[in-house]
Amino acid sequence: MRIVVLAGGIGGARFLRGLKAASPGSDITVIGNTGDDIHLFGLKVCPDLDTVMYTLGGGIHEGQGWGRADETFAVKEELAAYGVGPEWFGLGDRDFATHIVRTQMIAAGYPLSAVTEALCARWQPGVRLLPMTDDRVETHVLIDDPEAAPGADGQSGRRAVHFQEYWVRHRAAVPAHAVVPVGADQAKPAPGVLEAVAAADVVLFPPSNPVVSVGTILAVPGIREAIADAGVPVVGLSPVIGGAPVRGMADKVLAAVGVESTAAAVARFYGSGLLDGWLVDSSDAGTAGEVEAAGIRCRAVPLLMTDVAATAAMAREALALAEEVRA
Amino acid sequence: MRIVVLAGGIGGARFLRGLKAASPGSDITVIGNTGDDIHLFGLKVCPDLDTVMYTLGGGIHEGQGWGRADETFAVKEELAAYGVGPEWFGLGDRDFATHIVRTQMIAAGYPLSAVTEALCARWQPGVRLLPMTDDRVETHVLIDDPEAAPGADGQSGRRAVHFQEYWVRHRAAVPAHAVVPVGADQAKPAPGVLEAVAAADVVLFPPSNPVVSVGTILAVPGIREAIADAGVPVVGLSPVIGGAPVRGMADKVLAAVGVESTAAAVARFYGSGLLDGWLVDSSDAGTAGEVEAAGIRCRAVPLLMTDVAATAAMAREALALAEEVRA
Repeated sequence: MRIVVLAGGIGGARFLRGLKAASPGSDITVIGNTGDDIHLFGLKVCPDLDTVMYTLGGGIHEGQGWGRADETFAVKEELAAYGVGPEWFGLGDRDFATHIVRTQMIAAGYPLSAVTEALCARWQPGVRLLPMTDDRVETHVLIDDPEAAPGADGQSGRRAVHFQEYWVRHRAAVPAHAVVPVGADQAKPAPGVLEAVAAADVVLFPPSNPVVSVGTILAVPGIREAIADAGVPVVGLSPVIGGAPVRGMADKVLAAVGVESTAAAVARFYGSGLLDGWLVDSSDAGTAGEVEAAGIRCRAVPLLMTDVAATAAMAREALALAEEVRA
Repeated sequence: MRIVVLAGGIGGARFLRGLKAASPGSDITVIGNTGDDIHLFGLKVCPDLDTVMYTLGGGIHEGQGWGRADETFAVKEELAAYGVGPEWFGLGDRDFATHIVRTQMIAAGYPLSAVTEALCARWQPGVRLLPMTDDRVETHVLIDDPEAAPGADGQSGRRAVHFQEYWVRHRAAVPAHAVVPVGADQAKPAPGVLEAVAAADVVLFPPSNPVVSVGTILAVPGIREAIADAGVPVVGLSPVIGGAPVRGMADKVLAAVGVESTAAAVARFYGSGLLDGWLVDSSDAGTAGEVEAAGIRCRAVPLLMTDVAATAAMAREALALAEEVRA
């Protein structure tokens, strides 16, 4: 079976590990979010792509879900000694090497998709990992600037910051008023993306952040349309359980785009024009009717990715719902 | 007293430590060799400037004379895991940070001289460290290619390689036929270099490599002339003792430019038009007459930089010889 998965970082990567276990014979293509890419210390850093690659390739720091296992921080300490930051972004020594290789290949003229393929030649993630685009897209968040006093119009204290600054530096603890994938409207899907969608038997949205992960991928012109037009089941898993995100701070960016933090609201955010099936957590079984009323088939199953076995069970439920939709 | 020193890497850096101890009140400007600079992993590496900076700033690996103390090699190991080399150049994690800062500043438009000043703001070397030039100069060595068979003309197996490839990768163990500071003829002295020479009370050549360190600095148009025209004593210390270089493989590059590996031959290589005084080791006292016959005042003193005290004594001898020349 050919499965296409739209993935962000930790949530997407962990779901993919379960999906591989649930469907070992499948041909899985991952379309990875690059809206959270950032240039640090002159290096191109792709946090979501790397989280997928490290997680599936066995190099991830299991405890934190991002970055490398057995990591050290000598380079970062030295950069700080030179007064060079930002200090709030935790790049480890092993991780640095990935960014050095990527930056060097990009400087040599390779597109990000080719670079990602080269990096994966080492990690052997067992999936085909494609960036959503080779073009530059940067998710910015309009926040209340914590360092500025608001003006008489109540808005002068607002500032657009890189998603990582909002997410990692401010821990999403400052009010956010808008989320903008800068450059997405001019971006083209990376080579292979539309072809993979067109050839897919099923498309899955893991319990990734619906705004800044899956939403950013869908903001690249052509991808949403290709999924809607593929004529195959599109099934998602809710990242929200009982009114709160399972992990991360997805509620904050949902609020910024005017979406309630409930499993049903996220399903409506994707919309029945795109989504055929939606898994909510067993504890949210009461919302299934609301989702179905929106034209999206809904099932309530355990949605906590506590380990690979539990995650594989979720993946099996998603694939089962896809077959139900297809039939 | 205003002292200008032309320095390469380890020999120059260790001499400077002795000079600082010998003449703590002096204003020392170091003109550093940049001909051994190399781009590795997309980063600009300046081995000689860094060796001076780390040595005088207290960050040097004392045992090997280059690189950082308490160094780790996680980045290099990871790069090797990606199949990215060269593996023969030992860049440590702490050292990487220096190159990242430098590369980022250069990409932002700062000249190497400004970058070096910024890096020294952390290390406080106690001297003013100037690169010989802000322009790109790369010392290449014409070697017998160990991977090619010589042709009928006996020369087809020759190849020009970066100095670091000859020095570090091949350990100077392949025959060298020429040493060329590529780009030197088009280079301009960095800001402050000619001014420092013009204002100097004395100019010193430490026991650095006369071909690929001091020689490369002198190959930048204007620097040799400024030193010759400064009208102040110019005193050097022989890096050759008893027919062999004290450390390193200077004899190999001396042979490549047709100069014998003796203290007297190196003095003649610099020439009486440039050099006023020359210190040879006590064991080479017999060659003093030969040096003096070439028009260069010569003294035989202990020239082994075994520790800071011994090195400071050498520096005092050099300054004493300068005063003798001046008088």
